Amino acid sequence: MLQKLLNNPTSESIETESLLNRAQDPEIYQLKQPIERLMLLYGDKYSLQILDLLIAEGPLRFVALEKAITGISPRTLSQRLKHLERHGMLKRHQYPSIPPKVEYEPTEKAIALRPMIDGMKNWADTWFPYCPA
Amino acid sequence: MLQKLLNNPTSESIETESLLNRAQDPEIYQLKQPIERLMLLYGDKYSLQILDLLIAEGPLRFVALEKAITGISPRTLSQRLKHLERHGMLKRHQYPSIPPKVEYEPTEKAIALRPMIDGMKNWADTWFPYCPA
Repeated sequence: MLQKLLNNPTSESIETESLLNRAQDPEIYQLKQPIERLMLLYGDKYSLQILDLLIAEGPLRFVALEKAITGISPRTLSQRLKHLERHGMLKRHQYPSIPPKVEYEPTEKAIALRPMIDGMKNWADTWFPYCPA
Repeated sequence: MLQKLLNNPTSESIETESLLNRAQDPEIYQLKQPIERLMLLYGDKYSLQILDLLIAEGPLRFVALEKAITGISPRTLSQRLKHLERHGMLKRHQYPSIPPKVEYEPTEKAIALRPMIDGMKNWADTWFPYCPA
């Protein structure tokens, strides 16, 4: 599935997504450099960590994300989830159970980031390995 | 050369670089998550653009970088170059000509980022294509 997406994203899915996002969020499409668009999406301390967790582990609940990300406040996590949802990077599913259950699921375009995120993490662990004081 | 580096970075070069960086900049090694280390290095609007230009085009002068990066101020460019140099991502070469000539060259570890940066840019152009107003 992932490999198929990477090699051959359907023109239909891309077109629908693009139109949707352009309507919701025009400014990102007005940034000429692709790296500026990337940084608007996840150039902060936590967004790429959230995406990485969702891509690797599938749909997750708020509390699971909060536990997995060191140092994030509920307020910041909530803001970053809204930001990523607004840009079509994840979907929020609310189930009518008691207590209500909410899960966050990565979209096709988020999943397509996986090989680059894995490569970047390996790079960081090779050249800047974790070494606690 | 690039493929060799990626598959088999010499333990010597990594060790020397790591010791050097650990002495200069201990805090990055104390971040547990690799993505936090990445964002400390280039989680801003311009650092990854600077690295991308240097990796693609080789050593460049300050003015060439300034021209190539839309909207960057000389002050910000200077700060980001110092930040990247401090983390061992580039080397500054000053030549004793008149007027003095200064060039910035990407290091081995910066060059090793190339496939991930290219993949990320392709991803951005596929899912968030440039579309000026």
